[in-house]
Amino acid sequence: MAQVNGVDEFRYIDLVERKIGNVKQRASLRDIAAETGVSVATVSRVLNDHVNVAPRTRDLVLQAVERRKQETPTRTVYVRCPYVLTDYFGLIVSSIAETLKLHGLRLLLDAGESGQHSGALRGLPGQDDVDAAILILPPEEGDELVALSQAGFPFVVVDPRTPPPPDIAAVSAAHSSGARAVADHLIGLGHRDIAVIAGPEEWLAGDARLAGHRAALAKVGVLLTPDRLRHVEPTTAQGRRAAAELLDLSPRPTAIVCFNDKVAVGTLQAARERGLRVPEDLSVAGFDDIDLAEATDPPLTTVRQPLQEMGRIAVTQLMRVLDGHEPEALHIELATTLVARGSTAAVNSA
Amino acid sequence: MAQVNGVDEFRYIDLVERKIGNVKQRASLRDIAAETGVSVATVSRVLNDHVNVAPRTRDLVLQAVERRKQETPTRTVYVRCPYVLTDYFGLIVSSIAETLKLHGLRLLLDAGESGQHSGALRGLPGQDDVDAAILILPPEEGDELVALSQAGFPFVVVDPRTPPPPDIAAVSAAHSSGARAVADHLIGLGHRDIAVIAGPEEWLAGDARLAGHRAALAKVGVLLTPDRLRHVEPTTAQGRRAAAELLDLSPRPTAIVCFNDKVAVGTLQAARERGLRVPEDLSVAGFDDIDLAEATDPPLTTVRQPLQEMGRIAVTQLMRVLDGHEPEALHIELATTLVARGSTAAVNSA
Repeated sequence: MAQVNGVDEFRYIDLVERKIGNVKQRASLRDIAAETGVSVATVSRVLNDHVNVAPRTRDLVLQAVERRKQETPTRTVYVRCPYVLTDYFGLIVSSIAETLKLHGLRLLLDAGESGQHSGALRGLPGQDDVDAAILILPPEEGDELVALSQAGFPFVVVDPRTPPPPDIAAVSAAHSSGARAVADHLIGLGHRDIAVIAGPEEWLAGDARLAGHRAALAKVGVLLTPDRLRHVEPTTAQGRRAAAELLDLSPRPTAIVCFNDKVAVGTLQAARERGLRVPEDLSVAGFDDIDLAEATDPPLTTVRQPLQEMGRIAVTQLMRVLDGHEPEALHIELATTLVARGSTAAVNSA
Repeated sequence: MAQVNGVDEFRYIDLVERKIGNVKQRASLRDIAAETGVSVATVSRVLNDHVNVAPRTRDLVLQAVERRKQETPTRTVYVRCPYVLTDYFGLIVSSIAETLKLHGLRLLLDAGESGQHSGALRGLPGQDDVDAAILILPPEEGDELVALSQAGFPFVVVDPRTPPPPDIAAVSAAHSSGARAVADHLIGLGHRDIAVIAGPEEWLAGDARLAGHRAALAKVGVLLTPDRLRHVEPTTAQGRRAAAELLDLSPRPTAIVCFNDKVAVGTLQAARERGLRVPEDLSVAGFDDIDLAEATDPPLTTVRQPLQEMGRIAVTQLMRVLDGHEPEALHIELATTLVARGSTAAVNSA
């Protein structure tokens, strides 16, 4: 279960919505409850996609929401994800789409790599049929985001690339603690000579994950030396190349911790090319827990990112900003989870 | 390169657009050419995302398109993909998003599994700010699509689940010929005892791929017997279960051809659990060529679906329907490509 500031995620959404002070929305929850004969708490659970609701009740509530939506004017949210909707970004966008729909908002999508050069943010405040925006991993510098905010346009950033400016609402994964957890896991298995294939230094995720790896190593008295560190664009091909270099070092690292699962797949390939067995001769860990991570042999030890929760919380935050309130917390970091699988084992387990 | 009715895909788009008879759009292409000082053909290449354009020229044209878009009223296309945007659906939606944007159309997204029960189609013709729709793998029966068409609402179906009604514009992959190609590949490697883990029978893709497998086998005098055939929902878990049954048969099939790559990953797992080596003891093939297919050990022999081309052609077809013309062809099947990798080898290669 994802945690927000140490609070169970659904409980958190509930807290935020209770305090949201949006009379219209609260009335609407109550109306739907009255209309369907279920409790307000159940309506809220359905809207938050909680698993613990009977299918029949869920359908009843969703039908009532659907009828209500057709009666009220619809607000439109511009969602921009300037990347291909792969297993990573696609899951975030799916979750945003489902949650906006449940709240009766429309989603205007701008997706794909061409969005990186569009200068679309400047035009947003002038579009009178777009009410708010959710920006996923925006490539813009912080000052462009600040300008958009100062123009009074409501928006939330998901998975910021660089540390978000103080006044901008943002949702991200707890990169640093996730990275610490996976390094701690390797240290607990007896590894000390751990090499790191990190992401781009200028990315918040790259920087924060590397910091987590360094911190875990430093705690047991190990300093990550430059020969044990590579920075790559997070692709399988670059991971394979970087891993090849690290595996040709003497002495050879006993473990490689990777920026993400795609890089870890490249690392598995480089190990295989050298006749090294994973995990007997080399432990390998990834980050993200996309579908790929379970398809490899052995399956990858990794860190699960709460992609769906990120989408849901972003919408919850946006609803608050849209209604002219301060969000409960401007920068929300969602807890990540270590997922231990077959690609890591005790050092010298061969 | 994808083929449409035997014609190179870009050439096809070009042909369609030439014949499109849309004076407004042709004027607009000419205007952009005049404004930027490049040829109309180059503008068209940029709009069709052709690789063979200098980056500077591309930027110049895209900027001009951007300015033009801000001057003209924007049409909105409702894109519904009632599934999570994984590597499969996400790629189709990304391509639709990029192509709509290049044509100056806005994308209203309805994504995620809740879309399967929304009854959204009935409301479409009444929404005066939605001009057209692209429906990806619609769960509705054909008569609902016919009703939408008869209401005069312009739409195109991508990857239809059941055979599309005669008057509905649709784009799909050539499932049957792709499936024949992969079965032919196994037959060429000497396999005759080929088991099939097929998709749901009521899906067009499931039915057409199975027909392709049967046809290839029948050509060499082999009839697929019921004990060699399983139908599954296309997930890794179901693939693993079905493969376990097939691998426990005596005699054991020498090859398993799977509905898609996820099912093939489950088949690899089942083989591994039984100590069988792939491809020495068992050949395995998938379908789709999603990222997963290259991450397995060995990497999967599979059939590449032209997901991006499907998105692009769907938009091209929609533009034509939107402008009140008959599409060039109502049902377009895009060619698939066999991708031979390490998971298939000659029978008894051990």
